[in-house]
Amino acid sequence: MTPQPLPLPATASATVVSLRSRAFGRRGGMAMQRGSRRVALRPRYGTGPVVAEVGYLWCGAPDAPTVIVQGGISACRDVVSLEEGEPAGWWQELVGAGRAIDLECCRVLSIDWLAPESLGVGAVSSEDQADALAALLEELGIGRAHAFIGSSYGAMVALAFAARHPQAVDRLVLLAGAHRPHPLATAQRSVQRSIVRLGQQSGNVDEALALARQLAMTTYRGSEEFARRFEHAPELRDGRFRFPVEDYLDHAGKRFVERFDAERFLALSESIDLHDVAPEQVAVPATLIGFPSDRLVPLADLCELQRRLRGVATLEVVDSPYGHDAFLKETRKLAPLLRAALA
Amino acid sequence: MTPQPLPLPATASATVVSLRSRAFGRRGGMAMQRGSRRVALRPRYGTGPVVAEVGYLWCGAPDAPTVIVQGGISACRDVVSLEEGEPAGWWQELVGAGRAIDLECCRVLSIDWLAPESLGVGAVSSEDQADALAALLEELGIGRAHAFIGSSYGAMVALAFAARHPQAVDRLVLLAGAHRPHPLATAQRSVQRSIVRLGQQSGNVDEALALARQLAMTTYRGSEEFARRFEHAPELRDGRFRFPVEDYLDHAGKRFVERFDAERFLALSESIDLHDVAPEQVAVPATLIGFPSDRLVPLADLCELQRRLRGVATLEVVDSPYGHDAFLKETRKLAPLLRAALA
Repeated sequence: MTPQPLPLPATASATVVSLRSRAFGRRGGMAMQRGSRRVALRPRYGTGPVVAEVGYLWCGAPDAPTVIVQGGISACRDVVSLEEGEPAGWWQELVGAGRAIDLECCRVLSIDWLAPESLGVGAVSSEDQADALAALLEELGIGRAHAFIGSSYGAMVALAFAARHPQAVDRLVLLAGAHRPHPLATAQRSVQRSIVRLGQQSGNVDEALALARQLAMTTYRGSEEFARRFEHAPELRDGRFRFPVEDYLDHAGKRFVERFDAERFLALSESIDLHDVAPEQVAVPATLIGFPSDRLVPLADLCELQRRLRGVATLEVVDSPYGHDAFLKETRKLAPLLRAALA
Repeated sequence: MTPQPLPLPATASATVVSLRSRAFGRRGGMAMQRGSRRVALRPRYGTGPVVAEVGYLWCGAPDAPTVIVQGGISACRDVVSLEEGEPAGWWQELVGAGRAIDLECCRVLSIDWLAPESLGVGAVSSEDQADALAALLEELGIGRAHAFIGSSYGAMVALAFAARHPQAVDRLVLLAGAHRPHPLATAQRSVQRSIVRLGQQSGNVDEALALARQLAMTTYRGSEEFARRFEHAPELRDGRFRFPVEDYLDHAGKRFVERFDAERFLALSESIDLHDVAPEQVAVPATLIGFPSDRLVPLADLCELQRRLRGVATLEVVDSPYGHDAFLKETRKLAPLLRAALA
């Protein structure tokens, strides 16, 4: 994973450097690659071209058009799992044979987000992620994706991708993500990062990362959902009052620490706040999907994005009690919208 | 401030115990007492009656009706300052001769919130604050207040007061506070308290308390307000990106640490979450004032409170970009509503 400065001319910054596939499977007419490739890019906050290893999943009908699917900062390339007995992918209900993102008609491509250490830089940008995806498309011989479906940070990266590589994608589908973060959401993430940094200083990284995640959960989930699930009296436990929502938050914090790293969290959280793409630079047709209960990415910001995009853009508003996480929870309501956008 | 168990019969739990006034002033026909009294009460989470010292301010036209005014957990009794050269009170623009709460026609009474240590208990309730106020009314010979104007936690205490001491108040004015906390707000405060407790464990109390306050600020202020004030690009400073909102949050956190104590914060924050008054128990007429941009106390909760109160209740909805803090910021819009409620 060590970055290697590469003496490439600027025009070759997306050139394939090496190929190492870790997995290749075939199940009932589906092809699956789960591997990594080394790609060259020029990080926004770097001093020149570097080579980075990108972990990816590419699966679906062989030779079918490719659809890029990217989620939030804590999502990985495992959008879907095709192996029995493996944990489900993070969008398992929407991706598969006959599902909204139909693996009999398309192939899904997704990457693990790059972190600054793999680029040899201090900060990673949504543009870096976009450039890595563009380089990977070329490396895999895809050339042009049928669509880029991005949710949350994935939507930000999709916009950066369309602004920088308009020839590489036919259509955008952007869920709960916009051209810039809302300043209130930046404030909330800033506090999360400060909690983690305080934990690093005082040797309580795990506890601090768990608390940052607890705070994040209060911004992801809907207000109505909290009201419905946690409206009960507190219990006196271990000498202090415990409120019903605290067990939920504790659990979410601990689970996150088991699967996530503090430095990676700091970098990807910051990357959201550094994101800033002028919608006027994006001419690729787009379907925007927003949720009125999303307090992290207010619907007003998607309205502004729609108004300012240079290409044709439609905005679909999906009612949900689940706030920002509606992109993960409202699979039934999202399915027809995704089908229509991909048709 | 050491609590003293007092062998009083239950019926005498509001008996005056002693009197020590620290200040008495008179300015242009106004009387001012800023002192403390010892009052007896039975704390909700205690085992029997105790005596606690209550710091209070009582000022206005001599012999005029008394209006109790209480603010949020970080507010003190200094609703208004009548001395030249002293810092302004937290509702200075609304309280004074000729102002909405007109000190030529009434006297304002306000207390410093009780903390658990002054009651010898582990947790303090909104009922305890209400009982202390009721005991103080009796101690000062007021008997019955013309109104109880409570904002935020102060509104919760006002409801507890009206439920427990209906004979002691003619009218309630409740701003941005309801019969119970919203579970999402409880979640946000729970994370704040966990930050402070983690800081206490690791010897970083001040930094942790400042971070908890930063988080609180993200819940107090309006989303629109953040968008308008902090929509600028970050600066690279001291080796990392600084977002404009971070300077604001840092400043707010540091200022809070200078004037507030971690234990007091933990107790009063928890007291909000322990608050639970059945509106059906409150027959005192009430004016509710809510702000659609208040994410901490959603307007829907004030609608529910209005519907369930036993007495006549009106709900005034005040548009504001300032969120929960509109009760502090929208003095011009609040003035006529307060005048009408007190008339």
